Amino acid sequence: MNEAAITLDGWYALHDLRSMDWTSWKMVSNEERQAAVDEFHVYLEKLQKADDEKTGSHAFYTIVGQKADFMLMIMRPTMDELQELESEFNKLAIADFTIPSYSYVSVVELSNYLAGESTEDPYQNPYVRARLYPELPRQQYICFYPMNKKRDGEDNWFMLDMDKRKELMRAHGLIGRGYAGKVKQIITGSVGFDDFEWGVTLFSEDILQFKKLIYEMRFDEVSARYAEFGSFFVGTLLDGDKKTAFFNI
Amino acid sequence: MNEAAITLDGWYALHDLRSMDWTSWKMVSNEERQAAVDEFHVYLEKLQKADDEKTGSHAFYTIVGQKADFMLMIMRPTMDELQELESEFNKLAIADFTIPSYSYVSVVELSNYLAGESTEDPYQNPYVRARLYPELPRQQYICFYPMNKKRDGEDNWFMLDMDKRKELMRAHGLIGRGYAGKVKQIITGSVGFDDFEWGVTLFSEDILQFKKLIYEMRFDEVSARYAEFGSFFVGTLLDGDKKTAFFNI
Amino acid sequence: MNEAAITLDGWYALHDLRSMDWTSWKMVSNEERQAAVDEFHVYLEKLQKADDEKTGSHAFYTIVGQKADFMLMIMRPTMDELQELESEFNKLAIADFTIPSYSYVSVVELSNYLAGESTEDPYQNPYVRARLYPELPRQQYICFYPMNKKRDGEDNWFMLDMDKRKELMRAHGLIGRGYAGKVKQIITGSVGFDDFEWGVTLFSEDILQFKKLIYEMRFDEVSARYAEFGSFFVGTLLDGDKKTAFFNI
Amino acid sequence: MNEAAITLDGWYALHDLRSMDWTSWKMVSNEERQAAVDEFHVYLEKLQKADDEKTGSHAFYTIVGQKADFMLMIMRPTMDELQELESEFNKLAIADFTIPSYSYVSVVELSNYLAGESTEDPYQNPYVRARLYPELPRQQYICFYPMNKKRDGEDNWFMLDMDKRKELMRAHGLIGRGYAGKVKQIITGSVGFDDFEWGVTLFSEDILQFKKLIYEMRFDEVSARYAEFGSFFVGTLLDGDKKTAFFNI
Amino acid sequence: MNEAAITLDGWYALHDLRSMDWTSWKMVSNEERQAAVDEFHVYLEKLQKADDEKTGSHAFYTIVGQKADFMLMIMRPTMDELQELESEFNKLAIADFTIPSYSYVSVVELSNYLAGESTEDPYQNPYVRARLYPELPRQQYICFYPMNKKRDGEDNWFMLDMDKRKELMRAHGLIGRGYAGKVKQIITGSVGFDDFEWGVTLFSEDILQFKKLIYEMRFDEVSARYAEFGSFFVGTLLDGDKKTAFFNI
Repeated sequence: MNEAAITLDGWYALHDLRSMDWTSWKMVSNEERQAAVDEFHVYLEKLQKADDEKTGSHAFYTIVGQKADFMLMIMRPTMDELQELESEFNKLAIADFTIPSYSYVSVVELSNYLAGESTEDPYQNPYVRARLYPELPRQQYICFYPMNKKRDGEDNWFMLDMDKRKELMRAHGLIGRGYAGKVKQIITGSVGFDDFEWGVTLFSEDILQFKKLIYEMRFDEVSARYAEFGSFFVGTLLDGDKKTAFFNI
Repeated sequence: MNEAAITLDGWYALHDLRSMDWTSWKMVSNEERQAAVDEFHVYLEKLQKADDEKTGSHAFYTIVGQKADFMLMIMRPTMDELQELESEFNKLAIADFTIPSYSYVSVVELSNYLAGESTEDPYQNPYVRARLYPELPRQQYICFYPMNKKRDGEDNWFMLDMDKRKELMRAHGLIGRGYAGKVKQIITGSVGFDDFEWGVTLFSEDILQFKKLIYEMRFDEVSARYAEFGSFFVGTLLDGDKKTAFFNI
Repeated sequence: MNEAAITLDGWYALHDLRSMDWTSWKMVSNEERQAAVDEFHVYLEKLQKADDEKTGSHAFYTIVGQKADFMLMIMRPTMDELQELESEFNKLAIADFTIPSYSYVSVVELSNYLAGESTEDPYQNPYVRARLYPELPRQQYICFYPMNKKRDGEDNWFMLDMDKRKELMRAHGLIGRGYAGKVKQIITGSVGFDDFEWGVTLFSEDILQFKKLIYEMRFDEVSARYAEFGSFFVGTLLDGDKKTAFFNI
Repeated sequence: MNEAAITLDGWYALHDLRSMDWTSWKMVSNEERQAAVDEFHVYLEKLQKADDEKTGSHAFYTIVGQKADFMLMIMRPTMDELQELESEFNKLAIADFTIPSYSYVSVVELSNYLAGESTEDPYQNPYVRARLYPELPRQQYICFYPMNKKRDGEDNWFMLDMDKRKELMRAHGLIGRGYAGKVKQIITGSVGFDDFEWGVTLFSEDILQFKKLIYEMRFDEVSARYAEFGSFFVGTLLDGDKKTAFFNI
Repeated sequence: MNEAAITLDGWYALHDLRSMDWTSWKMVSNEERQAAVDEFHVYLEKLQKADDEKTGSHAFYTIVGQKADFMLMIMRPTMDELQELESEFNKLAIADFTIPSYSYVSVVELSNYLAGESTEDPYQNPYVRARLYPELPRQQYICFYPMNKKRDGEDNWFMLDMDKRKELMRAHGLIGRGYAGKVKQIITGSVGFDDFEWGVTLFSEDILQFKKLIYEMRFDEVSARYAEFGSFFVGTLLDGDKKTAFFNI
């Protein structure tokens, strides 16, 4: 029996990726489209209010390519709130013109691999709190992907002992640190909540940094031997006029 | 030829997961929607009657994310009753507004790995009976996932001898016991009934306990080397007013 | 070059699994539904006539869960007859209310692993003939699944020599014999005909026997190391009034 | 760096498998159906003309089971002609009543594994030409499947040296030769053209020969250790009246 | 911690593959079809203008077989431009008659495996610039496929040290050089952008060269042991009258 890392868990997160049914969207009248967009903007403003009051956070981005047209990522203190916001979205008029493409249910997670020894309650530490209850940035680019740690013959992360995992995670973390200031990273855990074990959400003003960071990490043993990746989604920020232009016909 | 565990088998179970076709649902009149919801509530009351009379049990929960909108789990003494209840559901008006997303056919199962030696008929033991014919709780959260034991090169559960499997299952069971009072667990077997071999259905008042339990187990050899997981579904209880509000437009 | 088992081949078989499009089915008039069911019953009676005349056999069962609503299994002396019956079904009115979910094309097969030495023509042996051209029973439950023998690294059935395969199949067969009188089993081969290599169709009056038999076999080396399974389908007999009630709205 | 086999390449081939949308097909008038069938027959006659003039070849067969309703296989000297014939088919009325189920793009291929040493231009050898530009037969049954050679750990065909591959292919070829006169075989290569590396198309008057041939080969090391198979499709010839009857309602 | 190759990154690329919904396309009037084609041609001319001004490049080809009907490949200096061009396409009338089949998001990439030592800024080197910002040719045939380097047990590219990878890539590159003048090759990287790691886009006047090149490479250790391939797409150039004829009914 191997020792599991202890995790600190913060806000619950729902990544909701959808494609537009552009054909149906073009078929209805300008008025109907305008009403649907207006109603959706009210929904987005409600989300923004939680950001402003620091009772949650959200991000709204396009997705490039056919996998989805947009991603709405929402974080809240309880799973119940996410369920209610998802239900509310489904009842919006705009939802009738979308096709679900992927969703991911998780909770912000910090693992103790990199933690020092301390007697304080980490949930009271302001630095830890800022990472558990993060304000999602408004940077130009987003990258999201879910992942597992492998359990495959000799390459079985969960059969490694804690010291080995700590050592490997330390080297892995060093790569990430090299991108401080260039890429903001949110790790969410989904063991028991969704099909993959972790989700990685990255933000940057320079989309090439996503590629550089992930490519560099791929040669690190944690990724090279032990990582299994789901789909990768990249996109651009939908804010200001773009939120409207995106839906314009 | 290796010795199989002897299992005790209780009620048959059908997990039925469905998405709502919200677009069609919004298109029909309030009256038609109300009639469909009323008819569905009569169906749910019939299910509840079996719970009350202890001739079966059921659970009705939302599912968070796009994999499904709700899960209806039903347990009965015979597969025939499940088939009839499924057929009856398909003929309800509400069914026309749902899209099947996943189902799982199984039977409540207790294995003898953890059993002591005894000469009594286990089916007469009240403790065993309570586990084979369980009353599904009304806790706030549900987690459901199907799983296999691996048969992959060196990691082949079914090639291990009985003593080794007993030893591994004992360690595995200890983790579960640490969550007694926090998580209620129902194991159902589906060898010969469905594509996965076992289904795990968890109930809790604290959704984070699902993640903690399953993450801790993942480092245990039974999961780390021998478990293969299907999709994970989590959701919130649909009872009282929520059963109505869920379908309201 | 390894020696292949010689097989005896009997009737060709088509397993045709379909879901009902209940929404469309409810939309048409009672008269249209009745006409479609009547026409389908004429088709089933024609199938039954072949059973009566021993020029073929068929089985008609529900499938529990969302994978399919019913399975029609048909056996005939030639593939051409199966193709024609499939084509005839597609042209029935009821077919317009069904959605194909899975099909499996094969031929009843007896392998020589368990055969003794004999100089007689096995196709003249009445016992062999009864197995090659079987009358499908009318028992309450059916279980169907396709499977492969693995060709994966050290676990490669087709690289084992004939003696080893004979020995393994003998042990495997002993488990099956323990279920004589409880489970009737039809093995069909589909190498060159369909994606899996074999199909197993089981009939019983006690659905739990399917689980017990297959679970016990899973610990046998033939299954544990060498079997790869497709989907498992279980269901209940559709005969007499049930054939009508199933389609009633 | 390992030596690749040199291949001789003949006609380009398109295997086009489609299901009928029988529901839509039944919905239109007899006149519309007749017009669509007539137009399709003109298309087939044009294909037949190329067969007659030996500027190409084609085959038209049903497919048994739900994977497809029919397969149209067309061979031409250039890929451009195949693209144009595909485009022409899509614009036929009958195409509107079909649902694409699988296609396969390849070129007839002879590999030099079995070739003797010779200084002549093989493309001038009449025996070679007959195999590179084959007349597809009108036998009662067809079998088609795509396949790869494995690149998986110890079982990596492409890491074997030429002598080993030659030796293995020689043994493999001997099995095939045992079916001469019973099964006609066309090998097409699709490295760089489609997802699998090779396609095998078999013709016979006795459908059981497909099963016997492929089952026997499965015990040969080339298949047992190195073959990875796609879907298998079998069907019956659509010629004469059957071409019409197939579409009759 | 293993050393990653340093890459030079050029234009961002979107491969957009779509099938035509021929049935809907035939249903609308000639006028509506003509208007949709005219509007699409204006879009293509705008793309061509960027080619002419060397501010981007594009290619427009059919795809043979059912995987897609056409591929539009667009390259631009920023991901934002690709997102806007994708959005603009979705709003064209022609888009309503297309079904997305596959897309691929990447950036032109040169790796330093084959680079010599130099102190100059490679982004100023005209030869390097011509490869990072390539003019897509107008050759008759295209071949596109995405790929990964394997991370599977002993066959783990990312666990090899830099020297070994350099040596392997040098041998691999030699094969490519043998096709100089016959096949033009564009490599794009998509780590962090899409599900595969690299995309290979080939152009040639002789489609058989794709098969010869890729088949020869498959025996090279880089492909034989370390390559994992996605789908392969081949097609023919859509230029001049063909751009119109393709959409004609």
